[in-house]
Amino acid sequence: MGIRLAELVERFGGELIGDPATEVVGIAPLTDAGVSHISFLTNSKFRAQAGQSQAAALIVSPNDDALVAETYQGARIVTKNPYAYFARVAQLFESLTAFVPPAGIHPTAYVDPAAQVDPTAHIGPHVTVEAGAVVKARAVIDAGCYIGRDAVVGEDTHFFANVTFHARCTIGARCILHSGAVIGTDGFGFASEGGVYIKIPQVGRVVIGDDVDIGANTTVDRGALEDTVIEDGVKLDNLIQIAHNCHIGAHTAMAGCVGVAGSAKIGKHCTFGGAAMISGHITIADNVFVTAATMVPRSITEPGQYTGFYPMAKNSEWERSAVVVRNAAGLREKVRELEKQIKAITTPKTLQEDES
Amino acid sequence: MGIRLAELVERFGGELIGDPATEVVGIAPLTDAGVSHISFLTNSKFRAQAGQSQAAALIVSPNDDALVAETYQGARIVTKNPYAYFARVAQLFESLTAFVPPAGIHPTAYVDPAAQVDPTAHIGPHVTVEAGAVVKARAVIDAGCYIGRDAVVGEDTHFFANVTFHARCTIGARCILHSGAVIGTDGFGFASEGGVYIKIPQVGRVVIGDDVDIGANTTVDRGALEDTVIEDGVKLDNLIQIAHNCHIGAHTAMAGCVGVAGSAKIGKHCTFGGAAMISGHITIADNVFVTAATMVPRSITEPGQYTGFYPMAKNSEWERSAVVVRNAAGLREKVRELEKQIKAITTPKTLQEDES
Amino acid sequence: MGIRLAELVERFGGELIGDPATEVVGIAPLTDAGVSHISFLTNSKFRAQAGQSQAAALIVSPNDDALVAETYQGARIVTKNPYAYFARVAQLFESLTAFVPPAGIHPTAYVDPAAQVDPTAHIGPHVTVEAGAVVKARAVIDAGCYIGRDAVVGEDTHFFANVTFHARCTIGARCILHSGAVIGTDGFGFASEGGVYIKIPQVGRVVIGDDVDIGANTTVDRGALEDTVIEDGVKLDNLIQIAHNCHIGAHTAMAGCVGVAGSAKIGKHCTFGGAAMISGHITIADNVFVTAATMVPRSITEPGQYTGFYPMAKNSEWERSAVVVRNAAGLREKVRELEKQIKAITTPKTLQEDES
Repeated sequence: MGIRLAELVERFGGELIGDPATEVVGIAPLTDAGVSHISFLTNSKFRAQAGQSQAAALIVSPNDDALVAETYQGARIVTKNPYAYFARVAQLFESLTAFVPPAGIHPTAYVDPAAQVDPTAHIGPHVTVEAGAVVKARAVIDAGCYIGRDAVVGEDTHFFANVTFHARCTIGARCILHSGAVIGTDGFGFASEGGVYIKIPQVGRVVIGDDVDIGANTTVDRGALEDTVIEDGVKLDNLIQIAHNCHIGAHTAMAGCVGVAGSAKIGKHCTFGGAAMISGHITIADNVFVTAATMVPRSITEPGQYTGFYPMAKNSEWERSAVVVRNAAGLREKVRELEKQIKAITTPKTLQEDES
Repeated sequence: MGIRLAELVERFGGELIGDPATEVVGIAPLTDAGVSHISFLTNSKFRAQAGQSQAAALIVSPNDDALVAETYQGARIVTKNPYAYFARVAQLFESLTAFVPPAGIHPTAYVDPAAQVDPTAHIGPHVTVEAGAVVKARAVIDAGCYIGRDAVVGEDTHFFANVTFHARCTIGARCILHSGAVIGTDGFGFASEGGVYIKIPQVGRVVIGDDVDIGANTTVDRGALEDTVIEDGVKLDNLIQIAHNCHIGAHTAMAGCVGVAGSAKIGKHCTFGGAAMISGHITIADNVFVTAATMVPRSITEPGQYTGFYPMAKNSEWERSAVVVRNAAGLREKVRELEKQIKAITTPKTLQEDES
Repeated sequence: MGIRLAELVERFGGELIGDPATEVVGIAPLTDAGVSHISFLTNSKFRAQAGQSQAAALIVSPNDDALVAETYQGARIVTKNPYAYFARVAQLFESLTAFVPPAGIHPTAYVDPAAQVDPTAHIGPHVTVEAGAVVKARAVIDAGCYIGRDAVVGEDTHFFANVTFHARCTIGARCILHSGAVIGTDGFGFASEGGVYIKIPQVGRVVIGDDVDIGANTTVDRGALEDTVIEDGVKLDNLIQIAHNCHIGAHTAMAGCVGVAGSAKIGKHCTFGGAAMISGHITIADNVFVTAATMVPRSITEPGQYTGFYPMAKNSEWERSAVVVRNAAGLREKVRELEKQIKAITTPKTLQEDES
């Protein structure tokens, strides 16, 4: 059941200081770790806790190692990015105990005879796979999922229960779609005539790269004429809305409840805090960080952090200030008026006449 | 495969300038259109692109036609609303290739013997139709949908995969419910007693008119005692929440992530930008446009556009300003104090004494 | 069909003034109630309506009773909390007519042989119950639900159609999960290395107490290493996101579209208005009320109401004020400058020299 530290270093690198034969059976936070756990120090301010940890081994950065060694007696794996190292070790431990769904099609699933399901893929109970759809090697499609006509699901991709993946959309390898995610709904496109809406058919697709995670109940609309595109490594949390024709650059991450309106083009390596709202038809540069609860009304061309939410206060204080904010233009007018009056007072008469 | 321009004009009106026998095989934007496509000019600022388009034909407004004709050599269909015309032509082309699900009940579906499903309707795999439910002619119920007891689904209405439509709710003709939409959940109604909540049974229904579209993972709660009502032609995007007892007027449209609290009465022909939030028990007039990310805390009695989101800035600028905004009432106090002081300086002494 | 007033008072308490043999057949608002209904007065300002109500009986507070008796001729049940009394009477009437799903497993459901389903539980069509899962007495699992491996569903708990409840999560007694709710998704946890995200396995659970209601399409993520916890009596509306490792105290209620970021600790008896957004890793005291559309960026240690949304205005007014708000720090600078200048004017020269 245990893994020797030597094996960890062999798999994931890092410098081992201590006995390579030491075995660990799991990974745990500093304060929770027992004597057969490995733990990790990802923030220097917890150095003191490290000294008191019972963990058999510690993943630590070169910066922290010397100080940690003063108080901590166990083995250390020194590595530049202890948090990433922790993630890999945790994945390894999880893989040892995780349930692996069997290859094959559950008897209660419906797979159209014209669909292609790789024999190594898992198709769970009550799944529907429509004609022309392709499910590639080792893909796992859990109970109740729907895969539309001519859709393509890549190798090792996992749909948790009750995902809806519509016709002609494609998703790459090693992706995770969480329960309730809906990919490839019609975009919200209408022409207005005499106050009545006429639906514009949405004939584009959703095209998703490799290593993309999409959260529970998140929705991604298909493009109107062209495709909605989500590049490699994008991570979307729960309850996010991505509208038609959006393009999300590689390795961009969005926290829960974010909304992105139609045709927004978002760069690579961006991060969006929860409930950030992105307007349609705008462009956001690479490496932009939008704070939670911020409305982005226009394009952002420079990397950096952008924010725009109303600062919370006790309700009574907010009420007093909100009236002023609502008429902030009026307050500025008053200040301008005061500036004029003071100028009139402080400026010598002759100068005033010269100016007029 | 192609459609003659004569046929388009016959179906949808407009004045054709060019050869009625010209055939087009699809519709595409100005810059993408090939020689067998029809394209459209919906915004005068793209007139220049029209001249360079390879499209065999162009849908154009009377206003733009003369200038377009100077550079564009193909056929033109002149019509007052080219965008609506485009929508109709696109619908026509889509209908030629769209998959039409067969009439009848899929063998894996469960339809209660006491439900009435029209023989022309389609019931997909793993669908559940409870007792007393009615599914009318040519309705299409895709895989995994749930239709509750005594619910009614109108003619030609389409539920995409995994829609939940609860007991006793009704929906009219030609509606579209997108995947994951949940109609008829219990409203959020509780009485509080000694700090504990007691559920108030929600016994109203959701009553939906004709030609209504409801987006993916959008939720509409049933009324507490009366009904939640969505009138004809309403268009709701994805991830919208409509609480119990709301009434949404005909031909109102809401973009994604909007929330409407209980008992709000919303007029006809309104539009709501994404993530707009509507308070409960308020009334919104017809023809109101609420900007995205705006909280509507009170009734709106006049048509027009209403806005209220914090203007985004670089985070460091926002931090400096947010402190001031949080205490905007304090700033106004200071300005009032300054006004008094300046008045004291500028007002002749005798006048000041008179005022006191 | 009817219930005698005597029976109501026997079940729910209160002082009956009038004929105990009077029968009522349902409960309705003051203005809608007919002669065989019981109605209720929960707000003194509607006393006038009470006088005109046709209701056979009225639930009324001691405070209102004397005035109501002047104009209203029917029977009265006097009780301290008429709204809670109304809720209980309404529940009683609903229970008389509500459909009770039969015990047993629907033939189209898939229940793993290694799952334990109590014989009094209802498992609806197309449900999946994985190995090791436990469904306790009188639980109702409607069509299309998914219950993961080793998950536990308590007595009398009701999952409406299409709920997803993931592996190892537990939920107590008398809970209601509404359609599309997803419990136990992986939390949004990644380590970043070289601009690429590495998934951190989410091995905690979601642990839900008794008498909890969770709304349609609401998502609750499992903990990363520890558990996400929702205590007894919590009420969550639709489309809410609860991130990993959150802890929500007993009898706290959240309206629709609220988002709670990871590791937030929320007290008991709190209420959150719609679309309130709670930052991660913060603590909120008991008895806090957060107004709708408010972003909570930091811990709240004192009970009370907190607010922070931008006050809505006509768009043109908002545009004028938003520019000022965006540069509120600049406006304060101007005011400070004015204060200095006025001080310079009003302070006698000699004093000014002393200060310097």
